[in-house]
Amino acid sequence: MTREVVYPVRVEFGDCDPAGIVWFPNFFRWIDAASRHFFIACGVPPWAETTTTLGVIGTPLVDTHASFRRTATYGDALEIHTSISEWRAKSFVQRYRVQRGADLLMECEEVRIFAGKRADGSMFAHPVPPSIRALCE
Amino acid sequence: MTREVVYPVRVEFGDCDPAGIVWFPNFFRWIDAASRHFFIACGVPPWAETTTTLGVIGTPLVDTHASFRRTATYGDALEIHTSISEWRAKSFVQRYRVQRGADLLMECEEVRIFAGKRADGSMFAHPVPPSIRALCE
Amino acid sequence: MTREVVYPVRVEFGDCDPAGIVWFPNFFRWIDAASRHFFIACGVPPWAETTTTLGVIGTPLVDTHASFRRTATYGDALEIHTSISEWRAKSFVQRYRVQRGADLLMECEEVRIFAGKRADGSMFAHPVPPSIRALCE
Amino acid sequence: MTREVVYPVRVEFGDCDPAGIVWFPNFFRWIDAASRHFFIACGVPPWAETTTTLGVIGTPLVDTHASFRRTATYGDALEIHTSISEWRAKSFVQRYRVQRGADLLMECEEVRIFAGKRADGSMFAHPVPPSIRALCE
Repeated sequence: MTREVVYPVRVEFGDCDPAGIVWFPNFFRWIDAASRHFFIACGVPPWAETTTTLGVIGTPLVDTHASFRRTATYGDALEIHTSISEWRAKSFVQRYRVQRGADLLMECEEVRIFAGKRADGSMFAHPVPPSIRALCE
Repeated sequence: MTREVVYPVRVEFGDCDPAGIVWFPNFFRWIDAASRHFFIACGVPPWAETTTTLGVIGTPLVDTHASFRRTATYGDALEIHTSISEWRAKSFVQRYRVQRGADLLMECEEVRIFAGKRADGSMFAHPVPPSIRALCE
Repeated sequence: MTREVVYPVRVEFGDCDPAGIVWFPNFFRWIDAASRHFFIACGVPPWAETTTTLGVIGTPLVDTHASFRRTATYGDALEIHTSISEWRAKSFVQRYRVQRGADLLMECEEVRIFAGKRADGSMFAHPVPPSIRALCE
Repeated sequence: MTREVVYPVRVEFGDCDPAGIVWFPNFFRWIDAASRHFFIACGVPPWAETTTTLGVIGTPLVDTHASFRRTATYGDALEIHTSISEWRAKSFVQRYRVQRGADLLMECEEVRIFAGKRADGSMFAHPVPPSIRALCE
């Protein structure tokens, strides 16, 4: 069984565009929050702490694929169902289903890495830390 | 030959996150602007006008797939190279390459529709209007 | 006694800037949501409904004054305490205190109107509708 | 004479709300960009550099007051006229007029500081650095 964490979202007036529906970049704002919330809910320490303990500064996005099925508008209460569907050597696949009640509005599948930072400021992909993976499975 | 339109972007301080790099939903903000800019540059009238003349209220997103190659930060000047790579019966594929000089930062491929609005407020996909396609090829 | 409504905010990673603190325009995003939430909590129907019943399409901002006292960062849970401190003939003053626990982070005082829309699309200020004022006091 | 710098803004579809006009927090996004642009245009080095040379990490906002006169919508080209109207010992007043052609849309007056960061991460207000003031007058 894959662990699933739910992140709630209230759609606000300012999240909507002149067509009266959520402007799509806002779905990615919420998905990024749901990604971080997943790790917090699994008991992974904040990245500020893992920076010191593991050299992991966060989980930047490498690739994302999203499908938009239904629109949403302000006043809607959404739920983002988040899980990790695949662990690779140096990356992982995080999946999201954005629902309004039983209606699926949007699906998204991302590849992210556990990033470290070199002395020159550039980032690199850590091997997946076993301690983090253990908390999330 | 496919027509290509370039949309310039200045990266600002507020577009960047605590890691000091562009927060990825902002790339989608800019890509949505580049999408609309493509049609304007091709001579397609604003959606406010096509709503009356063609029943087309805009080009909502159905599907998007993006790859992130390099990061950007504030002070960077980016260019979004935009084209339409495929015309289907009721949708089209719009492609984007986000560059900083010769460096490719991000690539994105979207499926969008030319949307109409029904009396009940719901949207539907128009067949691609030949007059718009002619302007964009 | 003035009625006060509390709107909760979770600060997310993407709300923060390269200094690691909330980028100030995000406070205004939240305050606008708190403004609308105030009316909903008081039992005022959604603007989509008052557009038909009262000709009121919303409460656009005319003037705002804000003081920033303390910073916030991601992971913080904030509360926006909202009230209407003054009713004028054709406008009202809405006040906000943004707190993290007992700490005051930001204060804001706005002048807003109950807007109607003319046939030409321009907006105007309605006299404050007594039915709305009665619900909010 | 006070030095004035102009920052251009294109209003995009996603900057507008369901009323079809710019959602007001976006004006503050642009004003923050205009603030930084003012210093760059005056020849002040980027904050990343002044962090090392002067201990100045940026110019956080202490207080802001804005009046909204006219609305804007997508397709509009705006200009933000920016100046520093007052220098105090440990802060300064930055002023903005947002125009569309000759029409004034919004005015804003801010108090900002030149911030330093203490070892514990907290910020403080530097005395205004004479080298920066000299470049901006």
